[in-house]
Amino acid sequence: MSLKFFFGPKTCALASRIALEEAGVAYEAVRLDMAGGQQRTPDYLAVNPKGRVPALVTAHGVLTETPAILAYIAQAYPAAKLAPIDDPFAFAQVQAFNSYLCSTVHINHAHKMRGYRWADEETSYADMKRKVPQSMAESFTLIERDMIAGPWVFGEDYTIADPYLYTMSRWLEGDGVDIARFPKVADHFKRMGERPAVQRAVAGDA
Amino acid sequence: MSLKFFFGPKTCALASRIALEEAGVAYEAVRLDMAGGQQRTPDYLAVNPKGRVPALVTAHGVLTETPAILAYIAQAYPAAKLAPIDDPFAFAQVQAFNSYLCSTVHINHAHKMRGYRWADEETSYADMKRKVPQSMAESFTLIERDMIAGPWVFGEDYTIADPYLYTMSRWLEGDGVDIARFPKVADHFKRMGERPAVQRAVAGDA
Repeated sequence: MSLKFFFGPKTCALASRIALEEAGVAYEAVRLDMAGGQQRTPDYLAVNPKGRVPALVTAHGVLTETPAILAYIAQAYPAAKLAPIDDPFAFAQVQAFNSYLCSTVHINHAHKMRGYRWADEETSYADMKRKVPQSMAESFTLIERDMIAGPWVFGEDYTIADPYLYTMSRWLEGDGVDIARFPKVADHFKRMGERPAVQRAVAGDA
Repeated sequence: MSLKFFFGPKTCALASRIALEEAGVAYEAVRLDMAGGQQRTPDYLAVNPKGRVPALVTAHGVLTETPAILAYIAQAYPAAKLAPIDDPFAFAQVQAFNSYLCSTVHINHAHKMRGYRWADEETSYADMKRKVPQSMAESFTLIERDMIAGPWVFGEDYTIADPYLYTMSRWLEGDGVDIARFPKVADHFKRMGERPAVQRAVAGDA
């Protein structure tokens, strides 16, 4: 059975899709109409009860959560060398980077459009939205200064941290942050865009 | 060199500390005065530039982010059997569970006291605080219904998902949610409290 990959365009699902492309894995991409609420239909909730993307259907079952899907791709397709899976400390460093993107950077971004998850008043949503450029810039300041070695996140070796950072970097412009403020991130963004696997994934992300 | 573990009392650091105790690893616990802002002092920022806990100092370097530290402990101390580390899919399932706790459940909780990360107005903070009982209850409803097998999160095998769930469950009362609404979670909470490793970790979490 080939993999089935549920995604919504312009979501964090892009990171996993790039990793699938990098690994050279065959998969069927299934686009959800997120604006139309397809992620909350009974059909999709049977796949992922959380009603979110991405979800990766494998022969063993369904996987959700970007950091877990990325780690799975790295471990299940070791020939692609997408993470230092034989070194627990180095692998954990990659996972720590991805965890930061998931639980801090993506969360900052989510306050632009998904404030209803954490508040009920329109005034709060507007307040949250105003702060997104600041919180995103703060996170990327930290990434630029302390977390990205260059040319890839972990230096010479491309890993599952790279497609995830690239996915977050793609959100900067819409979040009101100029990527040029972060030279290493900007260079990373440019290099990523030149990879055929990234180009294929982005082309499908519509 | 023995491990050095930086924590703040009643934070998510407890999950990693329980895992260290379960693995029977020697570590030195270093308590930060979080209320006093010690996590933002130059000394601590040299350990973790993010200014957060936990941080685990190993012979190889510093690790941060709870899901990454938990995965590291499971992989670096395999004799403790804290995760199905030889099965990429099963390991990813454990990581998906932990990623949900980190990026959804912990984030819900954080809106009670850390609204300043995502908004600037006192009215927004009050709004966020009001919604915490609802968002936490929704997450635990999902955990109870779809994510916890019992007696442990992944059935008969205790994993690194268990101390992390326990740590979040400990926050429910303060977040205005009655754990009795979730029988499997409540049973898990009770069982966890009976484990000597958990008791040692909790005793040190002050």
